[in-house]
Amino acid sequence: MSVQVTTLANGLRVVTDTMDSVETVAVGIWVAAGTRHETADVNGISHLLEHMAFKGTQRRTAQLIAEEMDNVGGQLNAYTSRDHTAYYAKMLKEDLGLAVDILADILLNSTMDEEELAREQHVVVQEINQADDTPDDIIFDHFQAAAFPEQPMGWPVLGREDLVRGVTSQRLRTYMSSNYAADNMVASASGAVDHGAFVRLIENAFGNLPRRSAVSEVAGRYQGGDFRQERDLEQIHVVLGFGGLPHGDPDFYNLGALSTLLGEGMSSRLFQEIREKRGLAYSVFSTSQSFSDTGLFSIYMGTGQSDVQKLVPVLRAEIEKVQAKVSEDEVKRARAQIKAGLLMSLESPGSRCAQSARQIMVYGRPLTVAEIIAKVDAVNADGICRVAQRIFSGKPTLAALGEGKSLDGLQSLLN
Amino acid sequence: MSVQVTTLANGLRVVTDTMDSVETVAVGIWVAAGTRHETADVNGISHLLEHMAFKGTQRRTAQLIAEEMDNVGGQLNAYTSRDHTAYYAKMLKEDLGLAVDILADILLNSTMDEEELAREQHVVVQEINQADDTPDDIIFDHFQAAAFPEQPMGWPVLGREDLVRGVTSQRLRTYMSSNYAADNMVASASGAVDHGAFVRLIENAFGNLPRRSAVSEVAGRYQGGDFRQERDLEQIHVVLGFGGLPHGDPDFYNLGALSTLLGEGMSSRLFQEIREKRGLAYSVFSTSQSFSDTGLFSIYMGTGQSDVQKLVPVLRAEIEKVQAKVSEDEVKRARAQIKAGLLMSLESPGSRCAQSARQIMVYGRPLTVAEIIAKVDAVNADGICRVAQRIFSGKPTLAALGEGKSLDGLQSLLN
Repeated sequence: MSVQVTTLANGLRVVTDTMDSVETVAVGIWVAAGTRHETADVNGISHLLEHMAFKGTQRRTAQLIAEEMDNVGGQLNAYTSRDHTAYYAKMLKEDLGLAVDILADILLNSTMDEEELAREQHVVVQEINQADDTPDDIIFDHFQAAAFPEQPMGWPVLGREDLVRGVTSQRLRTYMSSNYAADNMVASASGAVDHGAFVRLIENAFGNLPRRSAVSEVAGRYQGGDFRQERDLEQIHVVLGFGGLPHGDPDFYNLGALSTLLGEGMSSRLFQEIREKRGLAYSVFSTSQSFSDTGLFSIYMGTGQSDVQKLVPVLRAEIEKVQAKVSEDEVKRARAQIKAGLLMSLESPGSRCAQSARQIMVYGRPLTVAEIIAKVDAVNADGICRVAQRIFSGKPTLAALGEGKSLDGLQSLLN
Repeated sequence: MSVQVTTLANGLRVVTDTMDSVETVAVGIWVAAGTRHETADVNGISHLLEHMAFKGTQRRTAQLIAEEMDNVGGQLNAYTSRDHTAYYAKMLKEDLGLAVDILADILLNSTMDEEELAREQHVVVQEINQADDTPDDIIFDHFQAAAFPEQPMGWPVLGREDLVRGVTSQRLRTYMSSNYAADNMVASASGAVDHGAFVRLIENAFGNLPRRSAVSEVAGRYQGGDFRQERDLEQIHVVLGFGGLPHGDPDFYNLGALSTLLGEGMSSRLFQEIREKRGLAYSVFSTSQSFSDTGLFSIYMGTGQSDVQKLVPVLRAEIEKVQAKVSEDEVKRARAQIKAGLLMSLESPGSRCAQSARQIMVYGRPLTVAEIIAKVDAVNADGICRVAQRIFSGKPTLAALGEGKSLDGLQSLLN
């Protein structure tokens, strides 16, 4: 068993996954603070905070943070999602101590300087506008908002320009001190790392971080909805979705297999029917996302404005058919795809580091490969059809960007 | 030395890079046939051919190709570039034989069925339109065209709708038989693979493939140019570029270091000056591309329409400054970044497989890690300034999408 977990006195969980065959380490701090933990007046604060962490500490300027990592060829990065924020780095094994020191510094000693904040707010507004210029990116924000209307789960990760510009340094500090608490965080490292040594590094750096004060989390309630916006584009960009399943749902792996055989990979039904047999889209795929209390199942397609009328009935038919019957060959294939994907991801320190951290945040412990494989092996045709019925009987969510007439042509997807 | 090369009697080069620590294999066939080998009437044929390879053979339908790989959880993919096309797969080690059999089948026995072709032409047109809807993607096609006007090196990989629709099955077969010749190809595998066994697999599958008939390659001649197009966008998307260096140029590694310290990574000058100190862009980065006979150095920025007037003088100043002086710290940092990136890429079978194949196509042999590191260690401040002077004294290329007034504001970048 290469995975080991230690919980520090303050509740911070420390996990390592040691790989004998590599000379590098992937390390990161995962924090259960994301868009869904925000209040309406500061939507975007989790992501802005992630940016500001890199903008200087009591010991390092923003430039020094960048230079110290680049000096050793390390790669430092971060992202924010609906339910968490992660700060992570990859480096040669001898530089792990430096990476932990920098991660601790930016998470514990950030100055949140006012001038830096003003500049970074402008950078985030540029990021919002860049996303808006990219239809197959921004469409997923509109989709999320339509699926979860008027609740934090539906808000965009990047926030809105006026709200981002309105966040003060003081507000950032308050948000950080209430959400970046020890028992709300996981420190994870994979690759050429020793568990005991990593625990000591994390203990020295984060041992004095307090436990959490109460963090509020508004329950996510999938409702479904309809967002269509006219835009002068070559293609119409469509996301059709349904309420999905939370982590830990007994049908979680059946749903994964459903998405695999319906819309992931070249042999999937949607790829075969929409792209291969009819040439109606370059890009068509399904995705299943899970959160602690809800989930989202989505199908993306980009197609020509004039192809919408052909695409809609095909999509409707596939959603009907998969509820009625799934072949034994398809089930076997989906199992093989999920298992091989898992085994391949085990060869990358970065994947293992992220997997361990997320499993601890979701399930409170790392899952073993054997137990995941057992669950994938238990997936079967009845279970997949049952979960398809469960998912597709709910209210749909539609989001689309394109010409007016094409947008109208999508109407029947809502019935 | 983990890398071994065998050349078959027909000239096909076979390379393996064995890794003891993994259970998977990455395998692929690289073909020296890309956009630059096309004629004007069929621009896009290399990429269309790549699509058609997956559309059925004498032994397998398109659906069967997809199913056989997905049955074992393998991942089969392909891409086309200006100078080559690659077909590659990743799978568990016991499925290498199947992967080679499928790769050989799609490259040697493709039927190029007329009906499949008509559908796939429509899919490629959807892909062209999807790219056109994505400003920070399509801008690089306009940039390439402006840099290399009226020559194959400047044409888009995807081609143009009318040309793609005009390609016949017969034309595809002719293009394939003249370009997909044994001594024009490299078979590469990395990971849990035995050299002798892989050579036998490739010999059995590709041993009868003829040597090349003459393939024409029009020399790439960088000329520079100006493409600006009005679009209703939130941001202005800009690429400024210059003629770069071919593979094998004595200053190749100095140019790589120049790009690293000027515009790659968080500590780079452009990131620090444009994003960190002034907040003028979310995304700003430089790239150096090399071909057999020419090269392209480019800087991308996405910025607000109203920020152009502030950005232009900063960019001009940085291009001036880097020709005059580079600090010893910057040189050390660039070396460390390039070397650590190289060492990290060695842990992935996919990266090693692609690296070996490309090195053989470019240099005729695989490079050792030691010789690459020696060249990176030889990089120095004088060399970097010299190559910066060499690059930036040439005629610039500008490509931009945005509002009219902002586009006008870019004019001084051309002087």
